[in-house]
Amino acid sequence: MNRKRFDRGWEKLRQIHGDEGERFIDNVKSISPDLARFIVEFGFGDVYSRPGLDIRTRQIVTVAALTALGNAQPQLKVHIQAALNAGCSSEEMIEVMIQLAVYAGFPAALNGLGLVKQVLEERSKKDS
Amino acid sequence: MNRKRFDRGWEKLRQIHGDEGERFIDNVKSISPDLARFIVEFGFGDVYSRPGLDIRTRQIVTVAALTALGNAQPQLKVHIQAALNAGCSSEEMIEVMIQLAVYAGFPAALNGLGLVKQVLEERSKKDS
Amino acid sequence: MNRKRFDRGWEKLRQIHGDEGERFIDNVKSISPDLARFIVEFGFGDVYSRPGLDIRTRQIVTVAALTALGNAQPQLKVHIQAALNAGCSSEEMIEVMIQLAVYAGFPAALNGLGLVKQVLEERSKKDS
Amino acid sequence: MNRKRFDRGWEKLRQIHGDEGERFIDNVKSISPDLARFIVEFGFGDVYSRPGLDIRTRQIVTVAALTALGNAQPQLKVHIQAALNAGCSSEEMIEVMIQLAVYAGFPAALNGLGLVKQVLEERSKKDS
Amino acid sequence: MNRKRFDRGWEKLRQIHGDEGERFIDNVKSISPDLARFIVEFGFGDVYSRPGLDIRTRQIVTVAALTALGNAQPQLKVHIQAALNAGCSSEEMIEVMIQLAVYAGFPAALNGLGLVKQVLEERSKKDS
Amino acid sequence: MNRKRFDRGWEKLRQIHGDEGERFIDNVKSISPDLARFIVEFGFGDVYSRPGLDIRTRQIVTVAALTALGNAQPQLKVHIQAALNAGCSSEEMIEVMIQLAVYAGFPAALNGLGLVKQVLEERSKKDS
Repeated sequence: MNRKRFDRGWEKLRQIHGDEGERFIDNVKSISPDLARFIVEFGFGDVYSRPGLDIRTRQIVTVAALTALGNAQPQLKVHIQAALNAGCSSEEMIEVMIQLAVYAGFPAALNGLGLVKQVLEERSKKDS
Repeated sequence: MNRKRFDRGWEKLRQIHGDEGERFIDNVKSISPDLARFIVEFGFGDVYSRPGLDIRTRQIVTVAALTALGNAQPQLKVHIQAALNAGCSSEEMIEVMIQLAVYAGFPAALNGLGLVKQVLEERSKKDS
Repeated sequence: MNRKRFDRGWEKLRQIHGDEGERFIDNVKSISPDLARFIVEFGFGDVYSRPGLDIRTRQIVTVAALTALGNAQPQLKVHIQAALNAGCSSEEMIEVMIQLAVYAGFPAALNGLGLVKQVLEERSKKDS
Repeated sequence: MNRKRFDRGWEKLRQIHGDEGERFIDNVKSISPDLARFIVEFGFGDVYSRPGLDIRTRQIVTVAALTALGNAQPQLKVHIQAALNAGCSSEEMIEVMIQLAVYAGFPAALNGLGLVKQVLEERSKKDS
Repeated sequence: MNRKRFDRGWEKLRQIHGDEGERFIDNVKSISPDLARFIVEFGFGDVYSRPGLDIRTRQIVTVAALTALGNAQPQLKVHIQAALNAGCSSEEMIEVMIQLAVYAGFPAALNGLGLVKQVLEERSKKDS
Repeated sequence: MNRKRFDRGWEKLRQIHGDEGERFIDNVKSISPDLARFIVEFGFGDVYSRPGLDIRTRQIVTVAALTALGNAQPQLKVHIQAALNAGCSSEEMIEVMIQLAVYAGFPAALNGLGLVKQVLEERSKKDS
């Protein structure tokens, strides 16, 4: 049943993106409830729930892809946060960007690095 | 000394890409010895030699970026091979492509998957 | 005569983009009068004036291309407006984005959807 | 039930892409049965089966996106064929490419046009 | 008159791309006479005929853009040939690729370099 | 020695980008001192210091590539400034954008042109 896919996806989304993920889905729902549902069912219920890669590696894959494409900065920021939530260290996020300088060019890597910096600053502000 | 960077890079390149890496550098050298040297010194001596991410994760980052960009298929194939050499399973490579279907679209993911299939077939031919 | 191409293009531009199109051309003219003229003559006088596709379909083609490329958000917004002006329903615009999630990935589609939402909100504000 | 999504998707895939679509799914299945299933269930069962846009317009959207991206030529060819199957005329396909010259540049448009030519030649060979 | 634009463009095309340019236009004409005409009139009659940049610099701009985009390899090859025809040295073409390694990543640069090598080999074969 | 590469790169960076270049490196250093060092050593010490192309042409290559990619607007702005510093006229920068309209599409060219306009306005404000 799709209810099961949705529920599994919703739980996964909450686990990975927390409250911010919920707000994001609410926002998509306000313009297209069906696309919001596909994101939960397909993106999180089907794909993220698969056992083949752990969440940490899935976030690294996503961060690498979005940094290379360079045309979805808000999503890239969200996935850098999710990577840190999933146990990546800030050093690892920086290292991903250095690796990408070689393969996607320095500007793409520097824009990614700028978002890493922003996320780290927001976290340190929250903690203090 | 840059000699040290070159030597460290060369060793790293050999460790990651083996004989094929050496042939690749020879090929670049035949048209631009300086770019060949930069690849060894900067790409492998500076970046790949860094401790922050293991080689396996560096290959996953590279495979994800090149699959998303979709405009460097020969290099993508080489890095899928290197990912397998570094200990990624074929299941993990396939899983990276499934993850990328969500973020870079199915065509990019399917072209990546086609290269994974090609690499696996070449390997199984070699083994038999 | 190019005068004819310009006049035909100008009329087409006004028909498709209205006052905003005129302001856009004025803005381009302030830095490069020749590029402004090429947009009117070639873009609108030559291409948009062709009979092979109706304006509604031309806007769908343009919206799809710019959403997939993801690197020209201001223009994408203008073409979503033009698609609605040309008779596309808001449901159709949303549906284009859902279709693009499959082919260009969810982030590109979601950024396009965000602009659709923005355009619809601006229109409903204007109407009230 | 997902069985229903799969069956609906399979029927839609057969309707749009015919035998070639079936061969494509078989090929994906040989390397990743799950991704093959996602394509049928999500791509065709969820998205293509939606009423908001007719199949002809969905193919135009897809052709426009893939031509603009320019990094998935085999898929672009398949979707040009599907657009013609769905009732687009060859003139309309050519017109899409002319429109894209403005928005994605002439090289992208010319590569798309080359595939339109190839598809038309294969069809005229088959017919004779 | 557009006749004048076409004639000026045709002469410019012949000057830049020689017989190969003529064959290219014939090929485009066989599928879309109008797009072939737009290339001559707009691309060569309007843009390439402008005095603001010499042909050599225009080719460098085009080679840089197509190498960075990486999705129009046949056109990139043609423009590397045109750059050499316009007085660029092979060293300069190689240097453009080294510069692009920094901004578009090594894979894009290496694919460009491979085409430079191919063009140089074809020329040296022709000369001997 | 790498000290020599760093010093040569630093001098080149100062010559090309002035105080703004220094601030940029400081900013990168605050999140990744190593990537900042690689930019100076590799980007400026190795690549920009090469004799094969003058700085003016290197900036044109970079501006063309970043305009075509369209996903690194802050860097594009910096390189338009650097191109003007290196002796390019504002007319040449505009002409590069007109040339790119043909090869990367009008939206990419118009976004580049918008940055040229911004840079010229900031300069004229500073001068007055």
